[in-house]
Amino acid sequence: MEHIRIVLCRPIYGGNIGSVCRAMANMGLSDLVIAGAGAFDPLEARKMACWATDILESCRRFATLAEALADCALVFGATARTGLYRQHTRSPRDWAPGILAAAQAGRVALLFGPEDDGLSNEELAQCHHLIRIPSTPVYPSLNLAQAAMICMYELYVASGAFEPLPEKSPLAESGMKERMFAMWEQVLLEIGFMEPAKAQHMMLGVRRIFARGALSEDDVRILMGIARQTSWYAGQKEKKTTAPADGHP
Amino acid sequence: MEHIRIVLCRPIYGGNIGSVCRAMANMGLSDLVIAGAGAFDPLEARKMACWATDILESCRRFATLAEALADCALVFGATARTGLYRQHTRSPRDWAPGILAAAQAGRVALLFGPEDDGLSNEELAQCHHLIRIPSTPVYPSLNLAQAAMICMYELYVASGAFEPLPEKSPLAESGMKERMFAMWEQVLLEIGFMEPAKAQHMMLGVRRIFARGALSEDDVRILMGIARQTSWYAGQKEKKTTAPADGHP
Repeated sequence: MEHIRIVLCRPIYGGNIGSVCRAMANMGLSDLVIAGAGAFDPLEARKMACWATDILESCRRFATLAEALADCALVFGATARTGLYRQHTRSPRDWAPGILAAAQAGRVALLFGPEDDGLSNEELAQCHHLIRIPSTPVYPSLNLAQAAMICMYELYVASGAFEPLPEKSPLAESGMKERMFAMWEQVLLEIGFMEPAKAQHMMLGVRRIFARGALSEDDVRILMGIARQTSWYAGQKEKKTTAPADGHP
Repeated sequence: MEHIRIVLCRPIYGGNIGSVCRAMANMGLSDLVIAGAGAFDPLEARKMACWATDILESCRRFATLAEALADCALVFGATARTGLYRQHTRSPRDWAPGILAAAQAGRVALLFGPEDDGLSNEELAQCHHLIRIPSTPVYPSLNLAQAAMICMYELYVASGAFEPLPEKSPLAESGMKERMFAMWEQVLLEIGFMEPAKAQHMMLGVRRIFARGALSEDDVRILMGIARQTSWYAGQKEKKTTAPADGHP
Protein backbone atom coordinates (compact mmCIF):
# COMPACT_ATOMS: atom_id res chain seq x y z
CA MET A 1 0.00 0.00 0.00
CA GLU A 2 2.94 2.40 0.49
CA HIS A 3 3.46 2.63 -3.28
CA ILE A 4 -0.06 3.94 -3.79
CA ARG A 5 -0.40 7.71 -4.07
CA ILE A 6 -3.59 9.73 -3.84
CA VAL A 7 -3.50 12.73 -6.17
CA LEU A 8 -6.12 15.46 -5.87
CA CYS A 9 -6.22 17.61 -8.99
CA ARG A 10 -7.35 21.24 -8.48
CA PRO A 11 -9.41 20.51 -5.33
CA ILE A 12 -11.50 23.45 -4.12
CA TYR A 13 -12.75 22.74 -0.59
CA GLY A 14 -10.45 22.31 2.41
CA GLY A 15 -13.05 20.14 4.10
CA ASN A 16 -12.85 17.59 1.31
CA ILE A 17 -9.06 17.54 1.44
CA GLY A 18 -9.21 16.90 5.19
CA SER A 19 -11.81 14.16 4.69
CA VAL A 20 -9.52 12.48 2.16
CA CYS A 21 -6.70 12.54 4.75
CA ARG A 22 -8.88 10.82 7.34
CA ALA A 23 -10.08 8.23 4.81
CA MET A 24 -6.45 7.52 3.86
CA ALA A 25 -5.56 6.91 7.51
CA ASN A 26 -8.63 4.66 7.86
CA MET A 27 -7.52 2.60 4.87
CA GLY A 28 -3.76 2.49 5.47
CA LEU A 29 -2.48 5.01 2.90
CA SER A 30 -0.24 8.03 3.55
CA ASP A 31 1.12 9.51 0.28
CA LEU A 32 -1.06 12.51 -0.61
CA VAL A 33 -0.24 14.93 -3.42
CA ILE A 34 -2.23 18.00 -4.49
CA ALA A 35 -1.81 19.37 -8.00
CA GLY A 36 -2.77 22.82 -9.25
CA ALA A 37 -4.95 23.78 -6.29
CA GLY A 38 -5.85 27.33 -5.44
CA ALA A 39 -6.15 28.55 -1.85
CA PHE A 40 -8.31 26.35 0.32
CA ASP A 41 -9.50 26.76 3.90
CA PRO A 42 -6.80 25.19 6.13
CA LEU A 43 -9.06 25.22 9.21
CA GLU A 44 -11.78 23.24 7.39
CA ALA A 45 -9.12 20.79 6.20
CA ARG A 46 -7.75 20.31 9.74
CA LYS A 47 -11.23 19.85 11.18
CA MET A 48 -12.23 17.13 8.73
CA ALA A 49 -8.82 15.41 8.87
CA CYS A 50 -9.60 14.77 12.55
CA TRP A 51 -6.77 12.53 13.84
CA ALA A 52 -5.11 12.30 10.42
CA THR A 53 -3.47 15.75 10.46
CA ASP A 54 -0.05 14.09 9.94
CA ILE A 55 -1.13 13.15 6.40
CA LEU A 56 -2.40 16.70 5.82
CA GLU A 57 0.89 18.18 7.02
CA SER A 58 3.12 15.86 4.99
CA CYS A 59 1.05 16.33 1.84
CA ARG A 60 3.05 17.76 -1.10
CA ARG A 61 1.79 20.38 -3.55
CA PHE A 62 2.75 20.77 -7.22
CA ALA A 63 1.75 23.44 -9.70
CA THR A 64 1.00 20.97 -12.47
CA LEU A 65 -0.49 17.50 -12.72
CA ALA A 66 2.46 16.32 -14.81
CA GLU A 67 4.82 17.06 -11.89
CA ALA A 68 2.52 15.26 -9.43
CA LEU A 69 2.51 12.14 -11.60
CA ALA A 70 6.09 12.26 -12.90
CA ASP A 71 7.39 9.35 -10.78
CA CYS A 72 4.26 7.17 -11.13
CA ALA A 73 4.33 4.07 -13.33
CA LEU A 74 0.57 3.78 -13.59
CA VAL A 75 -2.17 6.38 -13.20
CA PHE A 76 -5.82 5.50 -12.51
CA GLY A 77 -8.26 8.38 -12.91
CA ALA A 78 -11.72 8.45 -11.35
CA THR A 79 -14.53 9.74 -13.52
CA ALA A 80 -18.30 9.82 -13.14
CA ARG A 81 -19.01 11.14 -16.62
CA THR A 82 -19.52 8.80 -19.54
CA GLY A 83 -18.70 10.83 -22.62
CA LEU A 84 -15.93 10.56 -25.16
CA TYR A 85 -12.69 8.95 -23.96
CA ARG A 86 -14.51 7.67 -20.89
CA GLN A 87 -15.73 4.30 -22.16
CA HIS A 88 -12.90 2.13 -20.98
CA THR A 89 -13.83 2.30 -17.32
CA ARG A 90 -13.92 -0.48 -14.75
CA SER A 91 -15.19 -0.43 -11.18
CA PRO A 92 -12.81 0.03 -8.22
CA ARG A 93 -13.50 -3.57 -7.18
CA ASP A 94 -12.52 -4.84 -10.61
CA TRP A 95 -9.34 -2.76 -10.66
CA ALA A 96 -8.25 -3.37 -7.05
CA PRO A 97 -6.23 -6.59 -7.56
CA GLY A 98 -4.48 -5.09 -10.60
CA ILE A 99 -3.66 -1.88 -8.74
CA LEU A 100 -2.17 -3.82 -5.82
CA ALA A 101 -0.15 -6.01 -8.22
CA ALA A 102 1.16 -2.96 -10.10
CA ALA A 103 2.10 -1.29 -6.80
CA GLN A 104 4.51 -4.16 -6.16
CA ALA A 105 6.47 -3.11 -9.26
CA GLY A 106 6.21 0.69 -9.17
CA ARG A 107 4.36 3.71 -7.87
CA VAL A 108 0.65 3.87 -8.69
CA ALA A 109 -1.46 7.04 -8.56
CA LEU A 110 -5.19 7.29 -7.98
CA LEU A 111 -6.25 10.61 -9.45
CA PHE A 112 -9.38 12.56 -8.51
CA GLY A 113 -10.59 15.72 -10.24
CA PRO A 114 -12.08 18.91 -8.82
CA GLU A 115 -15.47 18.95 -7.08
CA ASP A 116 -17.31 20.97 -9.70
CA ASP A 117 -16.66 19.13 -12.94
CA GLY A 118 -14.09 16.40 -12.49
CA LEU A 119 -11.05 15.69 -14.62
CA SER A 120 -10.74 17.53 -17.93
CA ASN A 121 -9.98 15.71 -21.18
CA GLU A 122 -6.34 16.86 -20.96
CA GLU A 123 -6.10 15.45 -17.44
CA LEU A 124 -7.82 12.21 -18.46
CA ALA A 125 -5.21 11.83 -21.19
CA GLN A 126 -2.58 11.53 -18.43
CA CYS A 127 -4.40 8.51 -16.97
CA HIS A 128 -3.57 5.00 -18.13
CA HIS A 129 -6.83 3.58 -16.83
CA LEU A 130 -10.20 4.94 -15.70
CA ILE A 131 -12.21 4.05 -12.62
CA ARG A 132 -15.98 4.44 -12.46
CA ILE A 133 -17.66 3.97 -9.10
CA PRO A 134 -21.04 2.20 -9.20
CA SER A 135 -23.77 4.75 -8.52
CA THR A 136 -27.32 5.50 -9.65
CA PRO A 137 -27.88 7.04 -13.07
CA VAL A 138 -30.11 9.58 -11.31
CA TYR A 139 -27.26 11.06 -9.27
CA PRO A 140 -23.97 9.46 -10.27
CA SER A 141 -21.67 12.21 -8.97
CA LEU A 142 -20.11 11.39 -5.60
CA ASN A 143 -18.53 13.88 -3.22
CA LEU A 144 -14.75 13.97 -3.81
CA ALA A 145 -13.82 12.47 -0.44
CA GLN A 146 -16.54 9.81 -0.72
CA ALA A 147 -15.23 8.74 -4.13
CA ALA A 148 -11.68 8.56 -2.78
CA MET A 149 -12.88 6.58 0.25
CA ILE A 150 -14.61 3.93 -1.85
CA CYS A 151 -11.54 3.41 -4.03
CA MET A 152 -9.24 3.16 -0.99
CA TYR A 153 -11.68 0.89 0.85
CA GLU A 154 -11.72 -1.50 -2.11
CA LEU A 155 -7.90 -1.55 -2.10
CA TYR A 156 -7.77 -2.15 1.65
CA VAL A 157 -10.28 -5.01 1.44
CA ALA A 158 -8.48 -6.53 -1.57
CA SER A 159 -5.13 -6.30 0.27
CA GLY A 160 -6.45 -8.82 2.79
CA ALA A 161 -5.04 -6.74 5.65
CA PHE A 162 -8.34 -6.68 7.52
CA GLU A 163 -9.00 -9.51 9.90
CA PRO A 164 -12.58 -9.80 11.09
CA LEU A 165 -13.06 -10.30 14.80
CA PRO A 166 -13.37 -14.01 15.45
CA GLU A 167 -16.51 -15.10 17.26
CA LYS A 168 -15.03 -16.20 20.59
CA SER A 169 -17.59 -18.90 21.29
CA PRO A 170 -17.78 -21.70 18.69
CA LEU A 171 -21.08 -22.82 17.19
CA ALA A 172 -22.95 -25.23 19.44
CA GLU A 173 -23.09 -28.80 18.21
CA SER A 174 -26.26 -30.81 17.94
CA GLY A 175 -25.69 -32.90 21.08
CA MET A 176 -25.41 -29.78 23.24
CA LYS A 177 -28.51 -28.27 21.67
CA GLU A 178 -30.48 -31.49 22.26
CA ARG A 179 -29.61 -31.33 25.99
CA MET A 180 -30.85 -27.74 26.01
CA PHE A 181 -34.14 -28.68 24.30
CA ALA A 182 -34.66 -31.52 26.85
CA MET A 183 -34.26 -29.01 29.70
CA TRP A 184 -36.70 -26.58 28.04
CA GLU A 185 -39.25 -29.31 27.42
CA GLN A 186 -39.08 -30.37 31.06
CA VAL A 187 -39.41 -26.85 32.48
CA LEU A 188 -42.19 -25.85 30.08
CA LEU A 189 -44.12 -28.87 31.36
CA GLU A 190 -43.30 -27.99 34.99
CA ILE A 191 -44.66 -24.46 34.73
CA GLY A 192 -47.73 -25.64 32.84
CA PHE A 193 -46.92 -23.81 29.58
CA MET A 194 -47.98 -26.96 27.70
CA GLU A 195 -49.76 -30.21 28.47
CA PRO A 196 -47.85 -33.48 28.07
CA ALA A 197 -50.15 -34.50 25.19
CA LYS A 198 -49.21 -31.42 23.21
CA ALA A 199 -45.56 -31.23 24.27
CA GLN A 200 -44.11 -32.86 21.18
CA HIS A 201 -46.02 -30.51 18.86
CA MET A 202 -45.16 -27.38 20.86
CA MET A 203 -41.49 -28.33 21.06
CA LEU A 204 -41.35 -28.34 17.25
CA GLY A 205 -42.28 -24.64 17.43
CA VAL A 206 -39.62 -23.99 20.09
CA ARG A 207 -37.00 -25.84 18.05
CA ARG A 208 -37.91 -23.78 14.98
CA ILE A 209 -37.46 -20.51 16.91
CA PHE A 210 -33.97 -21.48 18.02
CA ALA A 211 -33.07 -22.76 14.56
CA ARG A 212 -33.74 -19.36 12.90
CA GLY A 213 -30.11 -18.44 13.48
CA ALA A 214 -26.91 -20.24 14.35
CA LEU A 215 -26.45 -20.58 18.13
CA SER A 216 -23.02 -20.43 19.73
CA GLU A 217 -22.07 -22.51 22.78
CA ASP A 218 -22.38 -19.32 24.87
CA ASP A 219 -25.92 -18.83 23.54
CA VAL A 220 -26.88 -22.41 24.46
CA ARG A 221 -25.38 -22.06 27.95
CA ILE A 222 -27.54 -18.95 28.51
CA LEU A 223 -30.66 -20.83 27.34
CA MET A 224 -29.81 -23.78 29.62
CA GLY A 225 -29.33 -21.36 32.51
CA ILE A 226 -32.79 -19.86 31.91
CA ALA A 227 -34.38 -23.34 31.96
CA ARG A 228 -32.48 -24.31 35.11
CA GLN A 229 -33.36 -21.12 36.96
CA THR A 230 -37.00 -21.28 35.88
CA SER A 231 -37.21 -24.83 37.18
CA TRP A 232 -35.59 -23.81 40.48
CA TYR A 233 -37.85 -20.76 40.84
CA ALA A 234 -40.95 -22.83 40.04
CA GLY A 235 -39.85 -25.31 42.71
CA GLN A 236 -39.42 -22.52 45.28
CA LYS A 237 -42.85 -21.10 44.42
CA GLU A 238 -44.32 -24.57 44.74
CA LYS A 239 -42.87 -24.84 48.27
CA LYS A 240 -44.18 -21.41 49.23
CA THR A 241 -47.60 -22.12 47.78
CA THR A 242 -47.84 -25.40 49.66
CA ALA A 243 -46.20 -24.01 52.80
CA PRO A 244 -49.27 -22.22 54.18
CA ALA A 245 -51.13 -25.52 54.12
CA ASP A 246 -48.52 -26.81 56.54
CA GLY A 247 -49.26 -23.87 58.87
CA HIS A 248 -46.13 -21.81 58.02
CA PRO A 249 -47.21 -18.41 56.67
CA MET B 1 -33.87 -0.80 -1.82
CA GLU B 2 -37.00 1.20 -0.85
CA HIS B 3 -37.42 -0.89 2.31
CA ILE B 4 -34.00 0.11 3.58
CA ARG B 5 -33.94 2.99 6.06
CA ILE B 6 -30.90 4.98 7.14
CA VAL B 7 -31.16 6.00 10.81
CA LEU B 8 -28.76 8.58 12.25
CA CYS B 9 -28.75 8.46 16.03
CA ARG B 10 -27.90 11.75 17.80
CA PRO B 11 -25.88 13.19 14.89
CA ILE B 12 -24.04 16.42 15.70
CA TYR B 13 -22.83 18.03 12.47
CA GLY B 14 -25.16 19.30 9.76
CA GLY B 15 -22.43 18.76 7.16
CA ASN B 16 -22.38 15.04 7.90
CA ILE B 17 -26.17 14.81 7.67
CA GLY B 18 -26.05 16.51 4.27
CA SER B 19 -23.24 14.22 3.12
CA VAL B 20 -25.34 11.20 4.10
CA CYS B 21 -28.23 12.57 1.98
CA ARG B 22 -25.99 12.88 -1.07
CA ALA B 23 -24.53 9.41 -0.53
CA MET B 24 -28.08 8.01 -0.27
CA ALA B 25 -29.00 9.60 -3.60
CA ASN B 26 -25.80 8.24 -5.15
CA MET B 27 -26.67 4.73 -3.99
CA GLY B 28 -30.43 4.72 -4.63
CA LEU B 29 -31.83 5.13 -1.10
CA SER B 30 -34.30 7.77 0.10
CA ASP B 31 -35.70 6.91 3.58
CA LEU B 32 -33.72 8.95 6.13
CA VAL B 33 -34.65 9.17 9.81
CA ILE B 34 -32.88 11.14 12.54
CA ALA B 35 -33.31 10.13 16.17
CA GLY B 36 -32.57 12.22 19.23
CA ALA B 37 -30.56 14.91 17.48
CA GLY B 38 -29.94 18.35 18.93
CA ALA B 39 -29.80 21.46 16.78
CA PHE B 40 -27.53 21.14 13.76
CA ASP B 41 -26.46 23.69 11.16
CA PRO B 42 -29.09 23.56 8.36
CA LEU B 43 -26.91 25.56 5.97
CA GLU B 44 -24.02 23.11 6.34
CA ALA B 45 -26.46 20.25 5.78
CA ARG B 46 -27.86 21.85 2.59
CA LYS B 47 -24.40 22.60 1.25
CA MET B 48 -23.14 19.03 1.64
CA ALA B 49 -26.42 17.49 0.42
CA CYS B 50 -25.68 19.21 -2.91
CA TRP B 51 -28.37 17.96 -5.35
CA ALA B 52 -29.92 15.63 -2.75
CA THR B 53 -31.82 18.28 -0.80
CA ASP B 54 -35.08 16.40 -1.44
CA ILE B 55 -33.86 13.63 0.87
CA LEU B 56 -32.84 16.22 3.47
CA GLU B 57 -36.26 17.87 3.30
CA SER B 58 -38.27 14.64 3.49
CA CYS B 59 -36.16 13.31 6.38
CA ARG B 60 -38.21 12.56 9.53
CA ARG B 61 -37.08 13.31 13.09
CA PHE B 62 -37.97 11.38 16.25
CA ALA B 63 -37.12 12.13 19.85
CA THR B 64 -36.12 8.56 20.63
CA LEU B 65 -34.36 5.74 18.82
CA ALA B 66 -37.19 3.34 19.73
CA GLU B 67 -39.66 5.49 17.74
CA ALA B 68 -37.29 5.68 14.78
CA LEU B 69 -36.99 1.88 14.67
CA ALA B 70 -40.55 0.94 15.68
CA ASP B 71 -41.67 -0.24 12.22
CA CYS B 72 -38.39 -1.96 11.30
CA ALA B 73 -38.16 -5.76 11.23
CA LEU B 74 -34.38 -5.87 11.36
CA VAL B 75 -31.86 -3.35 12.67
CA PHE B 76 -28.18 -3.38 11.68
CA GLY B 77 -25.93 -1.12 13.77
CA ALA B 78 -22.53 0.11 12.64
CA THR B 79 -19.77 0.07 15.22
CA ALA B 80 -16.02 0.62 15.04
CA ARG B 81 -15.34 -0.33 18.65
CA THR B 82 -14.57 -3.89 19.62
CA GLY B 83 -15.51 -4.15 23.29
CA LEU B 84 -18.20 -6.06 25.12
CA TYR B 85 -21.34 -6.87 23.10
CA ARG B 86 -19.48 -5.95 19.92
CA GLN B 87 -18.00 -9.31 18.98
CA HIS B 88 -20.70 -10.54 16.65
CA THR B 89 -19.83 -8.18 13.84
CA ARG B 90 -19.59 -8.89 10.14
CA SER B 91 -18.41 -6.65 7.32
CA PRO B 92 -20.89 -4.69 5.15
CA ARG B 93 -19.95 -6.91 2.20
CA ASP B 94 -20.77 -10.05 4.19
CA TRP B 95 -24.09 -8.64 5.38
CA ALA B 96 -25.23 -7.07 2.08
CA PRO B 97 -26.99 -10.10 0.53
CA GLY B 98 -28.77 -10.83 3.83
CA ILE B 99 -29.88 -7.21 4.22
CA LEU B 100 -31.28 -7.16 0.67
CA ALA B 101 -33.08 -10.47 1.25
CA ALA B 102 -34.56 -9.24 4.55
CA ALA B 103 -35.70 -6.01 2.86
CA GLN B 104 -37.91 -8.12 0.56
CA ALA B 105 -39.88 -9.24 3.63
CA GLY B 106 -39.90 -6.13 5.83
CA ARG B 107 -38.30 -2.81 6.62
CA VAL B 108 -34.59 -2.91 7.47
CA ALA B 109 -32.73 -0.12 9.30
CA LEU B 110 -29.05 0.70 9.06
CA LEU B 111 -28.19 2.56 12.25
CA PHE B 112 -25.25 4.92 12.73
CA GLY B 113 -24.23 6.53 16.02
CA PRO B 114 -23.00 10.03 16.80
CA GLU B 115 -19.68 11.34 15.52
CA ASP B 116 -17.92 11.55 18.86
CA ASP B 117 -18.37 8.12 20.37
CA GLY B 118 -20.74 5.99 18.31
CA LEU B 119 -23.66 3.93 19.55
CA SER B 120 -24.04 3.43 23.30
CA ASN B 121 -24.59 -0.02 24.82
CA GLU B 122 -28.29 0.78 25.22
CA GLU B 123 -28.51 1.71 21.54
CA LEU B 124 -26.52 -1.37 20.49
CA ALA B 125 -29.05 -3.47 22.40
CA GLN B 126 -31.70 -2.28 19.93
CA CYS B 127 -29.70 -3.70 17.01
CA HIS B 128 -30.25 -7.26 15.84
CA HIS B 129 -26.91 -7.40 14.04
CA LEU B 130 -23.70 -5.39 14.02
CA ILE B 131 -21.69 -4.13 11.06
CA ARG B 132 -17.98 -3.44 11.26
CA ILE B 133 -16.32 -1.70 8.31
CA PRO B 134 -12.83 -2.94 7.44
CA SER B 135 -10.30 -0.27 8.47
CA THR B 136 -6.80 -0.07 9.88
CA PRO B 137 -6.27 -0.83 13.59
CA VAL B 138 -4.27 2.43 13.74
CA TYR B 139 -7.28 4.61 12.88
CA PRO B 140 -10.42 2.49 12.67
CA SER B 141 -12.94 5.28 13.20
CA LEU B 142 -14.51 6.53 9.96
CA ASN B 143 -16.34 9.80 9.49
CA LEU B 144 -20.10 9.24 9.93
CA ALA B 145 -21.00 9.98 6.29
CA GLN B 146 -18.07 7.88 5.02
CA ALA B 147 -19.22 4.90 7.09
CA ALA B 148 -22.78 5.29 5.82
CA MET B 149 -21.51 5.58 2.23
CA ILE B 150 -19.53 2.34 2.40
CA CYS B 151 -22.51 0.41 3.77
CA MET B 152 -24.86 1.83 1.13
CA TYR B 153 -22.30 1.29 -1.65
CA GLU B 154 -22.02 -2.38 -0.69
CA LEU B 155 -25.81 -2.70 -0.82
CA TYR B 156 -25.99 -0.98 -4.19
CA VAL B 157 -23.27 -3.20 -5.66
CA ALA B 158 -24.89 -6.34 -4.19
CA SER B 159 -28.27 -5.32 -5.61
CA GLY B 160 -26.84 -5.75 -9.10
CA ALA B 161 -28.48 -2.48 -10.19
CA PHE B 162 -25.24 -1.08 -11.57
CA GLU B 163 -24.44 -1.91 -15.15
CA PRO B 164 -20.90 -1.15 -16.18
CA LEU B 165 -20.50 0.67 -19.47
CA PRO B 166 -19.98 -1.90 -22.17
CA GLU B 167 -16.84 -1.49 -24.26
CA LYS B 168 -18.36 -0.52 -27.59
CA SER B 169 -15.68 -2.11 -29.70
CA PRO B 170 -15.22 -5.88 -29.27
CA LEU B 171 -11.80 -7.42 -28.66
CA ALA B 172 -9.84 -7.87 -31.87
CA GLU B 173 -9.37 -11.45 -32.99
CA SER B 174 -6.06 -12.99 -33.91
CA GLY B 175 -6.55 -12.83 -37.69
CA MET B 176 -7.14 -9.09 -37.59
CA LYS B 177 -4.12 -8.57 -35.35
CA GLU B 178 -1.92 -10.63 -37.69
CA ARG B 179 -2.89 -8.38 -40.62
CA MET B 180 -1.95 -5.38 -38.50
CA PHE B 181 1.45 -6.90 -37.59
CA ALA B 182 2.11 -7.63 -41.27
CA MET B 183 1.43 -3.95 -42.10
CA TRP B 184 3.71 -2.79 -39.29
CA GLU B 185 6.50 -5.14 -40.35
CA GLN B 186 6.32 -3.85 -43.91
CA VAL B 187 6.31 -0.18 -42.96
CA LEU B 188 9.06 -0.54 -40.38
CA LEU B 189 11.19 -2.07 -43.12
CA GLU B 190 10.20 0.71 -45.57
CA ILE B 191 11.27 3.51 -43.23
CA GLY B 192 14.47 1.69 -42.34
CA PHE B 193 13.61 1.20 -38.65
CA MET B 194 14.98 -2.35 -38.96
CA GLU B 195 17.02 -4.34 -41.45
CA PRO B 196 15.38 -7.35 -43.14
CA ALA B 197 17.83 -9.69 -41.37
CA LYS B 198 16.69 -8.48 -37.93
CA ALA B 199 13.02 -8.00 -38.79
CA GLN B 200 11.80 -11.25 -37.30
CA HIS B 201 13.58 -10.58 -34.00
CA MET B 202 12.41 -6.96 -33.76
CA MET B 203 8.82 -7.90 -34.58
CA LEU B 204 8.82 -10.17 -31.52
CA GLY B 205 9.43 -7.04 -29.45
CA VAL B 206 6.66 -5.15 -31.26
CA ARG B 207 4.27 -8.06 -30.80
CA ARG B 208 5.10 -8.16 -27.07
CA ILE B 209 4.33 -4.43 -26.70
CA PHE B 210 0.90 -4.83 -28.27
CA ALA B 211 0.20 -7.96 -26.23
CA ARG B 212 0.66 -6.19 -22.87
CA GLY B 213 -3.03 -5.39 -22.88
CA ALA B 214 -6.11 -6.57 -24.71
CA LEU B 215 -6.65 -4.64 -27.97
CA SER B 216 -10.13 -3.84 -29.26
CA GLU B 217 -11.00 -3.78 -32.97
CA ASP B 218 -10.99 0.04 -32.75
CA ASP B 219 -7.47 -0.09 -31.31
CA VAL B 220 -6.26 -2.34 -34.14
CA ARG B 221 -7.89 -0.12 -36.77
CA ILE B 222 -5.99 2.89 -35.32
CA LEU B 223 -2.71 0.92 -35.45
CA MET B 224 -3.39 -0.16 -39.04
CA GLY B 225 -4.15 3.46 -39.93
CA ILE B 226 -0.81 4.57 -38.48
CA ALA B 227 1.03 1.93 -40.55
CA ARG B 228 -0.88 2.86 -43.73
CA GLN B 229 -0.29 6.60 -43.27
CA THR B 230 3.38 6.11 -42.46
CA SER B 231 3.79 4.04 -45.60
CA TRP B 232 2.01 6.67 -47.69
CA TYR B 233 4.02 9.51 -46.14
CA ALA B 234 7.28 7.63 -46.66
CA GLY B 235 6.31 7.10 -50.31
CA GLN B 236 5.57 10.83 -50.76
CA LYS B 237 8.88 11.73 -49.17
CA GLU B 238 10.61 9.26 -51.48
CA LYS B 239 9.05 10.98 -54.53
CA LYS B 240 10.03 14.44 -53.27
CA THR B 241 13.54 13.28 -52.45
CA THR B 242 13.91 11.76 -55.86
CA ALA B 243 12.01 14.57 -57.59
CA PRO B 244 14.87 17.07 -57.70
CA ALA B 245 16.93 14.51 -59.58
CA ASP B 246 14.21 14.63 -62.25
CA GLY B 247 14.53 18.40 -62.46
CA HIS B 248 11.30 19.25 -60.58
CA PRO B 249 12.12 21.20 -57.42
